[in-house]
Amino acid sequence: MTQAVGIARAHTNIALIKYWGKRDKDLFLPMNSSLSLTLEAFYTDTKVVFDEELTADSFFLNGIEQSKTEIKKISRFLDLFCEYTGERPFARVESFNFVPTAAGLASSASAFAALALAVADALKLDMTRQELSTLARQGSGSSTRSLFGGFVEWSMGTSSGDSMAHPVDDADWDVGMLVLAVDTQEKKIASRVGMEHTVQTSPFYPAWIETAKEDLKAIKAAIATKDFEAVGQITEHNGMKMHATTLSANPPFTYWTADSLLAQEAVRRVREELQVPAYMTMDAGPNVKVLCRVSDMKILIEALSAYFPSEKIIASLPGPAAYVLSEEDWEQSKIHFAKGSQG
Amino acid sequence: MTQAVGIARAHTNIALIKYWGKRDKDLFLPMNSSLSLTLEAFYTDTKVVFDEELTADSFFLNGIEQSKTEIKKISRFLDLFCEYTGERPFARVESFNFVPTAAGLASSASAFAALALAVADALKLDMTRQELSTLARQGSGSSTRSLFGGFVEWSMGTSSGDSMAHPVDDADWDVGMLVLAVDTQEKKIASRVGMEHTVQTSPFYPAWIETAKEDLKAIKAAIATKDFEAVGQITEHNGMKMHATTLSANPPFTYWTADSLLAQEAVRRVREELQVPAYMTMDAGPNVKVLCRVSDMKILIEALSAYFPSEKIIASLPGPAAYVLSEEDWEQSKIHFAKGSQG
Repeated sequence: MTQAVGIARAHTNIALIKYWGKRDKDLFLPMNSSLSLTLEAFYTDTKVVFDEELTADSFFLNGIEQSKTEIKKISRFLDLFCEYTGERPFARVESFNFVPTAAGLASSASAFAALALAVADALKLDMTRQELSTLARQGSGSSTRSLFGGFVEWSMGTSSGDSMAHPVDDADWDVGMLVLAVDTQEKKIASRVGMEHTVQTSPFYPAWIETAKEDLKAIKAAIATKDFEAVGQITEHNGMKMHATTLSANPPFTYWTADSLLAQEAVRRVREELQVPAYMTMDAGPNVKVLCRVSDMKILIEALSAYFPSEKIIASLPGPAAYVLSEEDWEQSKIHFAKGSQG
Repeated sequence: MTQAVGIARAHTNIALIKYWGKRDKDLFLPMNSSLSLTLEAFYTDTKVVFDEELTADSFFLNGIEQSKTEIKKISRFLDLFCEYTGERPFARVESFNFVPTAAGLASSASAFAALALAVADALKLDMTRQELSTLARQGSGSSTRSLFGGFVEWSMGTSSGDSMAHPVDDADWDVGMLVLAVDTQEKKIASRVGMEHTVQTSPFYPAWIETAKEDLKAIKAAIATKDFEAVGQITEHNGMKMHATTLSANPPFTYWTADSLLAQEAVRRVREELQVPAYMTMDAGPNVKVLCRVSDMKILIEALSAYFPSEKIIASLPGPAAYVLSEEDWEQSKIHFAKGSQG
């Protein structure tokens, strides 16, 4: 080949059973299996061009050439594929993040999933989606799950080869998510650093791992019977337990800000007043995500608007698995991005 | 006797190793031993008059006659002493709480300690202070520790008779506390209810109890060597672990408000900027208490005033053991209270 092109879209995902801690840092092997909901509203489009004429890798995000540090991460990731392809030519990688800045969501989940699929497309790799997820995993743990749509499990596996994602349920029922984008400042403690400190110092960590296993089993049973309340209760309990592990680390720390608490209080008030089931979860940042029924979204957003500017409340349906885009799709996507519809 | 009078003052205390959960609800037997610092700035003065002419118990708090529910709690508490005295006459109990409303501190610790000592004084009970603490305990767990001054341990004991407090260190060195009274609204979840829910549902509770034991041992060693940083680090870790148990309860809950987070962030910022050791702890409410060196109080208050109105920052030295007051002291105390110096 002289040139090989691949383009793909992957949606972000929010873990309902959290991934919080690695048992192998180099291979991104997690301490526990996790489960997420892929979100329709947020995604990354990525194009990779392998070209023998190129003299170095390059990486453009949202039209802006990235730093050497960022390019190095991409190069390291592309090198993982050499195991399947032998030596590779240099590549030009372009990405557009359709994650509203206001959402303050980590885009690494959708980013590495989109890149993995784009590479597989470009190199015509004969690889199952699950196998591909073991490679996405080594870019960013949570991206393992973004190769699939709906409810997705990332099985911790026994080694690098079987620590992979698989779809659990297409979530094509009355379930969705609201993101309360309370604070979009960059987090002070990277999740990589926070989880490592927690694993090393929290006396509650062993109980976290033990009960995360039970939570996973329970939520899969609840998803199977479409028991929304049970799914929500397990989600809220599991997420709060994850944050409890940061408080029990030594020294203790938290990803919560004052605005996170205001959002939590608003959700508690609104769900009590409306008598509508709505369950919170939070990740390694200050924003609050609310698992709710799609049919309740309108009434919830209205009530929450008493506490937040409505542009800070972003609703999402469940999202699809990552998929390959055509050149035409890609051109449309660039236009879409340029129009600023990314938020 | 036709009349027996006793008057006493007890100071409040803040736990550095928390009491969080009962193994016997009726006897107020705790799940773990705890350790506190008695505070000079906050106290309760109480006078009890047993009088054979009286036809019922009565209770006046800050000059206001209390409800039947409150009087019942007092009566039940006074009845505990009958084991030592046989039948008792009815009593009139008067208390003044010198706990600034703005501090939003629970006054039950100083209240039942002052009442216990006033009763012992009135009835001329031949009882050690430690023995008396087993009775105070049955009014309110934390009041067990308020019979002593400085650093005080409440040993969980093996039964009601030996679940008692004893002094650990007079704290007559460079150590004190700032109370950041961020929110003085009444707490939504009584500590009694919160701890019971936590004991019953938190998967982290066993590890909390296990490590609280280790924390107690470690903080006593640190107090013995006057190692302020170690005392502070253990305090902050233990307190945050207690709050982690509420997040891990099912359903999860928290005593923190948005203002609590603002206070925490201010303390983190100020101690980093000033490079002054200052350690946070919180109880079953939204306020933040800061263990610091007395010699650093001035600079800390100045820096924290950038974030809080200075009247919301209350400094305290370590406080003394509960003590008996004379009739003259009592009259002075009433005048003092009337002048509004209670805050």
